[in-house]
Amino acid sequence: MKKARSLSLAALIGGGLALLTVGVASAQTPDEIQASLDDLTAALDTMWLIVAATLVLFMQAGFALVEAGFVRSKNVTNILMKNVLDACFGAMVYFAVGFGLAYGAAEAATGFYGSGSFFMSGNTDYATFFFQFVFAATAATIVSGAMAERTKFSAYIVYTVFITGLIYPIVTHWIWDGNGFLTAFRDDPMNGVGVVDFAGSTVVHSVGGWAALVGAIMVGARKGRFVNGQVNAFPGHSLPLGVLGVFILWVGWYGFNAGSTLGMSGGLAEIAARVAVTTTLAAGAGGATAMLLSWIQHGKSDLSLTLNGILGGLVAITAGTATLEPWAAIVAGVVAGFIIVYGVALLDTLKIDDPVGAVPVHLLNGIWGTLAVGLLSSEALMDNAYGVTSTWGILLGGGTDLFVTQLVGIAATAVWVVLASGILFGIIKATIGLRVSEAEEDAGLDVYEHGMEAYPEFTGGRDPFATLSGTGR
Amino acid sequence: MKKARSLSLAALIGGGLALLTVGVASAQTPDEIQASLDDLTAALDTMWLIVAATLVLFMQAGFALVEAGFVRSKNVTNILMKNVLDACFGAMVYFAVGFGLAYGAAEAATGFYGSGSFFMSGNTDYATFFFQFVFAATAATIVSGAMAERTKFSAYIVYTVFITGLIYPIVTHWIWDGNGFLTAFRDDPMNGVGVVDFAGSTVVHSVGGWAALVGAIMVGARKGRFVNGQVNAFPGHSLPLGVLGVFILWVGWYGFNAGSTLGMSGGLAEIAARVAVTTTLAAGAGGATAMLLSWIQHGKSDLSLTLNGILGGLVAITAGTATLEPWAAIVAGVVAGFIIVYGVALLDTLKIDDPVGAVPVHLLNGIWGTLAVGLLSSEALMDNAYGVTSTWGILLGGGTDLFVTQLVGIAATAVWVVLASGILFGIIKATIGLRVSEAEEDAGLDVYEHGMEAYPEFTGGRDPFATLSGTGR
Amino acid sequence: MKKARSLSLAALIGGGLALLTVGVASAQTPDEIQASLDDLTAALDTMWLIVAATLVLFMQAGFALVEAGFVRSKNVTNILMKNVLDACFGAMVYFAVGFGLAYGAAEAATGFYGSGSFFMSGNTDYATFFFQFVFAATAATIVSGAMAERTKFSAYIVYTVFITGLIYPIVTHWIWDGNGFLTAFRDDPMNGVGVVDFAGSTVVHSVGGWAALVGAIMVGARKGRFVNGQVNAFPGHSLPLGVLGVFILWVGWYGFNAGSTLGMSGGLAEIAARVAVTTTLAAGAGGATAMLLSWIQHGKSDLSLTLNGILGGLVAITAGTATLEPWAAIVAGVVAGFIIVYGVALLDTLKIDDPVGAVPVHLLNGIWGTLAVGLLSSEALMDNAYGVTSTWGILLGGGTDLFVTQLVGIAATAVWVVLASGILFGIIKATIGLRVSEAEEDAGLDVYEHGMEAYPEFTGGRDPFATLSGTGR
Repeated sequence: MKKARSLSLAALIGGGLALLTVGVASAQTPDEIQASLDDLTAALDTMWLIVAATLVLFMQAGFALVEAGFVRSKNVTNILMKNVLDACFGAMVYFAVGFGLAYGAAEAATGFYGSGSFFMSGNTDYATFFFQFVFAATAATIVSGAMAERTKFSAYIVYTVFITGLIYPIVTHWIWDGNGFLTAFRDDPMNGVGVVDFAGSTVVHSVGGWAALVGAIMVGARKGRFVNGQVNAFPGHSLPLGVLGVFILWVGWYGFNAGSTLGMSGGLAEIAARVAVTTTLAAGAGGATAMLLSWIQHGKSDLSLTLNGILGGLVAITAGTATLEPWAAIVAGVVAGFIIVYGVALLDTLKIDDPVGAVPVHLLNGIWGTLAVGLLSSEALMDNAYGVTSTWGILLGGGTDLFVTQLVGIAATAVWVVLASGILFGIIKATIGLRVSEAEEDAGLDVYEHGMEAYPEFTGGRDPFATLSGTGR
Repeated sequence: MKKARSLSLAALIGGGLALLTVGVASAQTPDEIQASLDDLTAALDTMWLIVAATLVLFMQAGFALVEAGFVRSKNVTNILMKNVLDACFGAMVYFAVGFGLAYGAAEAATGFYGSGSFFMSGNTDYATFFFQFVFAATAATIVSGAMAERTKFSAYIVYTVFITGLIYPIVTHWIWDGNGFLTAFRDDPMNGVGVVDFAGSTVVHSVGGWAALVGAIMVGARKGRFVNGQVNAFPGHSLPLGVLGVFILWVGWYGFNAGSTLGMSGGLAEIAARVAVTTTLAAGAGGATAMLLSWIQHGKSDLSLTLNGILGGLVAITAGTATLEPWAAIVAGVVAGFIIVYGVALLDTLKIDDPVGAVPVHLLNGIWGTLAVGLLSSEALMDNAYGVTSTWGILLGGGTDLFVTQLVGIAATAVWVVLASGILFGIIKATIGLRVSEAEEDAGLDVYEHGMEAYPEFTGGRDPFATLSGTGR
Repeated sequence: MKKARSLSLAALIGGGLALLTVGVASAQTPDEIQASLDDLTAALDTMWLIVAATLVLFMQAGFALVEAGFVRSKNVTNILMKNVLDACFGAMVYFAVGFGLAYGAAEAATGFYGSGSFFMSGNTDYATFFFQFVFAATAATIVSGAMAERTKFSAYIVYTVFITGLIYPIVTHWIWDGNGFLTAFRDDPMNGVGVVDFAGSTVVHSVGGWAALVGAIMVGARKGRFVNGQVNAFPGHSLPLGVLGVFILWVGWYGFNAGSTLGMSGGLAEIAARVAVTTTLAAGAGGATAMLLSWIQHGKSDLSLTLNGILGGLVAITAGTATLEPWAAIVAGVVAGFIIVYGVALLDTLKIDDPVGAVPVHLLNGIWGTLAVGLLSSEALMDNAYGVTSTWGILLGGGTDLFVTQLVGIAATAVWVVLASGILFGIIKATIGLRVSEAEEDAGLDVYEHGMEAYPEFTGGRDPFATLSGTGR
């Protein structure tokens, strides 16, 4: 039947590699049994990584739809293009540089960046590369939403390359690489525990969120958004796209969170299952809370806020998904719902224009989720997932060591990302420019930047090309 | 590399839990080998449950899109919101109450409901909870489609909580819990076999379908639907959303059906693979049949009926997916296609307004699928999947025991769900009200209930807010 | 808890089949350990096949969205219907005939077609059937895009049945069945290697692509497409659908490519992980290249070309995904991007109308991907994946044996598919007709063929039914 049996056979017979003979009829020697067990263990763990990474890659579609659904139709092609290219350029850049900075053999004692494995040289752990890349792509894709509808396409290309290739990998090294100065996985972690960020509330979401905030401030608000002290709503052009995007993100989050066990054998399956449950409960709690809050406040239940409540709950549980009990996951989600509703209002007050709510979702809830670990992690689960028995959540009597370490992780990440992305956006602004012209913003980025519309038949009678010159069409 | 190796190591070294040392270089003792085998077996089965449950959760997106695509654009926000909240509130309610009623330690001899494990107390089988929750969410989400475009949002919140938390879990207990009075998994099952409902034609789909039927009748038809003996078609606003929804449901159904082996080890993999094939064939047969039938009857092939034919085929194979041979799965699907086309017509005749066809898809084919087990199950597969050798499909010479048991299961479910949901909807109607005002129905539920439109730029010139007062906008 | 433990128990206790007792507390005998290992190995490999096949089935949704997004709204229902029915009819036909022609016990020495296992008779390898079917459905679905917006629905039904049931299975037999005359899996493969097409650049994509090219030529260009030597663009009606479709295809491709290891045990996991990486890099390189090229050429970055660049990269890596190093995968993707941009232009020059770009994506890149194996496969990976040490990529010093064999595979496939599909489309044209009437093409196929519109509320004021008679409405 196709390649299956045959390929396996070919590999076994002809291979110079030490492929294992599994499943022969007669009983095996102890060494053969051991080899079979090792092979099955590696196969199982690798399969889990591949499946989980595939789910995380699917989140690219989720981000694309959420961002597209929440902008106006004249900018849909542009925001879709950016989301598509996050994945494409991201793959090139992370292959060349990013992975090496994150996980390459450390530069001796510093613990601040990796060095090695560039272009995958000497790295044959393909499953790990695949899994790490999809996380990098996630961090990068957060930014485009906050800067939507007025950022130059060429500027986007530049900043996404630097976020995927430099800014994100550095934080990864700090918190997830065994040599990072903040990591829980080194022999002598900070405060005896290191930063506990199971799947990336800080490493992925805060990194993307800080860059999004800096970018949104530096590019400025969309024309007409804040006028005479009033906030004008620019409703997204398609809620169905937004809803589908959120469901895809929710589904992908099981790869993101549960997949971060990085394996299934050796008791990790139990952790992965618990992670799936806490992820589910936080998402539900976040969505339900934001919906009820919007209903209470405005007399009508708001679908956009509900969707962001779900995403906020997911971001908030990401750091503590393995160390919070189910009830604590619900607490994390409820708080996330509040953060969404009040965070969106806060941005309006501060006149920061974030078309899709990336800052409340990824930054504020990324911080909250990282703190929640220090507040709500249970003693038994800190032991189970990290082998740490000296500290756990403050509110459960686990002392301050964990909480303080989390604060350090948040602060270090903030300093690095704000500085690095500030410089990055500053240089872009001073050179090629960050923002499109007013005429382009009025007409929409789609025709100026890409010469095409998202829905060419549904323009309501206007000719989007009429007022443009030099569009090459 | 990230947490992977490190985490595993940390867990192994520091953990107080009995985590296993797997994959060490030297050969192991017999006890160590046994421990490795047990660990791998648990890991494999847990991974299957997590992956399958994730696929089933994805079905929430499928339902949302099908229901959104099949209603008019003025009610799209509303139906999306309901689908989003099914998952959010469902998670909270099933965690608190539903799981305990379904699978909590049984109240001694009754077999009518479980009691215990509320709020997951004492329940550490996280994978099972996750898997069972996504099924509960599926049952709840069926109802909103049949009651779309005229049901109050507050009424929806109330009924969905009761369906997920009470009505659905009771039937689950009856048929799937080892103590249920109808279950095939107790020591002395009814007629020596118990109700055979592998993945839930009755437990999930008929439960949702009966509640949908009762709800659709009690809320009444949409304004203008049945006028002077004529049936007016209200075509859904977007077929692409409907098609994507159906494909997502089809994909998710492999988690739903094949995942219901609840494991892969011990020969279950073979069952899961067979289930995948029968699921595929029934879906294809249902879609092809409905398409051809619509073509023959109306001179044109109808995409909506084709889509519902696929879903009908999937529902119809759900009970017998492990005990029907491939040819029998095709028979089940062909009949499902007929049921869809004639079922839709029947509802029109009865003046029951079901905007998305939930009753033909989930109720009628849920019943048919449960009966199909009693008609078409093969002797060898009843033995293989249930260890039953005394009865199988009537049409294959297996006697009446199985068929009669299936009838009892269908009838018991019907009585419980019709009564319970009838009382539920009756109380809602008498208190907060079940149906929106005529003005709201005319203008659409989106602006009245949620103050927002699904496609604010594509209103065709009408101002949906113009005729409204008190919408808070 | 539901069926899980209980079902497993029932199966173990009651079953007449040799189900294994796994996970008992006491240590096992050597034979029992062997049985446990065999069971786990089979379970793991089966699970991988089921998960991968489910991902591939999801690609049906991707194709449906890409094709729908790239046509005009008046033909959306029609193209969706075709995509839906590819899967439905495909399941029936592949079950009845296709699988048997591809993998049935070979007709002795010929190696040109299989014979046996029709209607799955005697075939109990359900996982393999499921996996092979989803590939067949993929090949069939490629054609409808190239012939979109002017092909009769009845003609479509006929040709899709023959492609899934006859044309595709024959090539499968040649290259993937152990008895095929071109296969790498026979004892004495051609030139000591046989055609290396790991996941189907030729078997799936070129087959679909050749049929698409022949069909597009024979049905002729859409009215108004090529007028007075000018090429008129008919922009697709919805880019968001196109983008989502491409992301779904990208995600599904991990099932397609990595799943083609057909298992995880015995060292296959390592291959699957490498495949996931090369697949990712080729997709990214294809998209990035096509984007940059369109930007350079037209002054604007083109989203449609970028999307097809991604798909082209995926098709191009499909044959060599297990034997190309990561850097070579990027080369394959970059070339694929060029092929897309210039291939689209070439078709315009040749006045061949391919509305979705199926020919550049599937045919041209299918050929390129098959050649890339002969140019770029590494010595170590040819050994690792195929156990071949005598030949590898020409450019890496592996001699001409592999390259020449690939050319033979490409040529043989071309001859068979062009002839067979030419005859097929010729007979259809001479009998029921291949093309709709001009009036139908003007009004759109949706109302004539299906009596319904994709977006009935968004017609921009036109009444699509106004000019039609005899539409049965």
